[in-house]
Amino acid sequence: MKKIINQPENVVDDMLNGLTYAHEDLVRRLPDTGVIVRQKEEKGKVALVSGGGSGHEPAHAGFVGKGMLAAAVCGPVFTSPTPDQVLAAIQEVDAGAGVFLIIKNYSGDIMNFEMAKDMAEMDDIAVDFVVVDDDIAVEDSLYTAGKRGVAGTVLVHKILGAAADMGANLEEIKALADKIVPNIKTLGVALSGATVPEVGHPGFTLEEQEIEFGVGIHGEPGYRKAAIAPSKELAAEIVEKLKGQFGWKKGDRFALLVNGLGSTPLMEQYIFINDVKQLLEADGLEVDFKKVGDYMTAIDMAGLSLTMMKLEEENWLDKLNYATETIAWV
Amino acid sequence: MKKIINQPENVVDDMLNGLTYAHEDLVRRLPDTGVIVRQKEEKGKVALVSGGGSGHEPAHAGFVGKGMLAAAVCGPVFTSPTPDQVLAAIQEVDAGAGVFLIIKNYSGDIMNFEMAKDMAEMDDIAVDFVVVDDDIAVEDSLYTAGKRGVAGTVLVHKILGAAADMGANLEEIKALADKIVPNIKTLGVALSGATVPEVGHPGFTLEEQEIEFGVGIHGEPGYRKAAIAPSKELAAEIVEKLKGQFGWKKGDRFALLVNGLGSTPLMEQYIFINDVKQLLEADGLEVDFKKVGDYMTAIDMAGLSLTMMKLEEENWLDKLNYATETIAWV
Repeated sequence: MKKIINQPENVVDDMLNGLTYAHEDLVRRLPDTGVIVRQKEEKGKVALVSGGGSGHEPAHAGFVGKGMLAAAVCGPVFTSPTPDQVLAAIQEVDAGAGVFLIIKNYSGDIMNFEMAKDMAEMDDIAVDFVVVDDDIAVEDSLYTAGKRGVAGTVLVHKILGAAADMGANLEEIKALADKIVPNIKTLGVALSGATVPEVGHPGFTLEEQEIEFGVGIHGEPGYRKAAIAPSKELAAEIVEKLKGQFGWKKGDRFALLVNGLGSTPLMEQYIFINDVKQLLEADGLEVDFKKVGDYMTAIDMAGLSLTMMKLEEENWLDKLNYATETIAWV
Repeated sequence: MKKIINQPENVVDDMLNGLTYAHEDLVRRLPDTGVIVRQKEEKGKVALVSGGGSGHEPAHAGFVGKGMLAAAVCGPVFTSPTPDQVLAAIQEVDAGAGVFLIIKNYSGDIMNFEMAKDMAEMDDIAVDFVVVDDDIAVEDSLYTAGKRGVAGTVLVHKILGAAADMGANLEEIKALADKIVPNIKTLGVALSGATVPEVGHPGFTLEEQEIEFGVGIHGEPGYRKAAIAPSKELAAEIVEKLKGQFGWKKGDRFALLVNGLGSTPLMEQYIFINDVKQLLEADGLEVDFKKVGDYMTAIDMAGLSLTMMKLEEENWLDKLNYATETIAWV
């Protein structure tokens, strides 16, 4: 393992200290926790909290700020934060209108975020939540019943964050969440495994010319290994699978997110979206929103994912375009 | 080589098509060139043009937009763009107040940008330029007489871009450039080589536990190989070298840029800046501006660089904080 770190057991602590130092205008860290909170409270508005294991940077702390999350709860690498950490975040950011939790579909996260919800409700804080399960690769997985939550979660942060900033109440946020999540689907391809610092070697390995479709953001197995192929062919397989899920037709409107998994140069991400473009144009889709970059990574995994969101309502696009003040939503 | 690309000889073309598709609100591509131009012309203002070989994404196209560059000229990977490409950019973006070229110090870039300047002047376009040589690693290098231009170039884009947007004329931009460039210094450390797609293997290799200080952004040799060490020790060596150049004293004010070289997770970049923080605080420096992320990469090289800029004038900080509308300056 060759990484720029100090003691492997301290990577999250060191990282969060560095992050709050670098971005002290936007965020602060709750002392003795892994909770990153926005600097500006929004009185009377619903506060969004997300989080999970670390190793997915910039998710989730990079999306804390006006128009997105009120707090991110950062657990150990690839490990759910404890309920008391989630509770600390909820208590800190509640601004009188309740707290909404955005949870990626991993059993540990769901258990711990739901326990925190129960504890907060005993404190008379109104809490509701949504579980994001956008990864279409496999049903059930190493740490998940049902489908995993991956990069599409960032679009959920964005749209709900805009709604909260516009003044939606907790019931309205919940209703919006339940409408958008089924319209967000993601599929990725890995070119390498990810190395958890405390483990010291990749969670899985691929042969020199081998890739794997559908790998999870903790290195969970995908659905198919294959030989590396041109970007056009990778795009064709991924788009075909997404098409199977959406069953889209000409004129349908979508948002796209090409997401690097941690060590994939932007060059490759741009080449890939160029190939995706041709395929979607061939099907007559209208693409109204696009993002390219590292949004939900798996430490140093090479590869990328494609998230598509069907834009069923015009206001979803407005919320994707709504102004934010965060570290990593550009 | 395992990369998400199509034909290696088409990577720049494919990438620029993907980039302009993803960000069509901000930039467009001049047909049949590697020139990326901002969508909104700023009439009567000086237009900044930068560029060089590709493979440094998001530099330079990611910095095209209001408040930074008017155009980026994107050559083949690690290869200078031809004079006619630079000339096409100059002709396209001149808005009546002249064009200012920001050139990284590589012999090919200087030759080709200067030829374009001469040709543009024959067209009665006023052109001036600055050469950025912020890399303190070595004197002279594979493709350079004197010091190389690396990540600090992005701070030059930012400050001069703000000045141009505020209405500075060509002489004022030139005077500002000549003042800021000597105050910007960078040093990096590489954990791996970079693979140019058309070559197919890394330009240099390091042993499993080996790193190299001072490697250039095209893989040019650095000044010392060493065994991988904790982030604190890497930070100590890099800060000590920068201190030797600046000769700083307590109370001096600086801007910082921690720059990932292409495949370095944000986790490591944040850990590193946390260690830099301790060292600068111990010396009593005041750090008024910080950035962390991938700004000037070397394709898929692992490692990072630290850029420090001595803030001798308050207006330099204002210009660093000035609002921009670009792909990659967050």
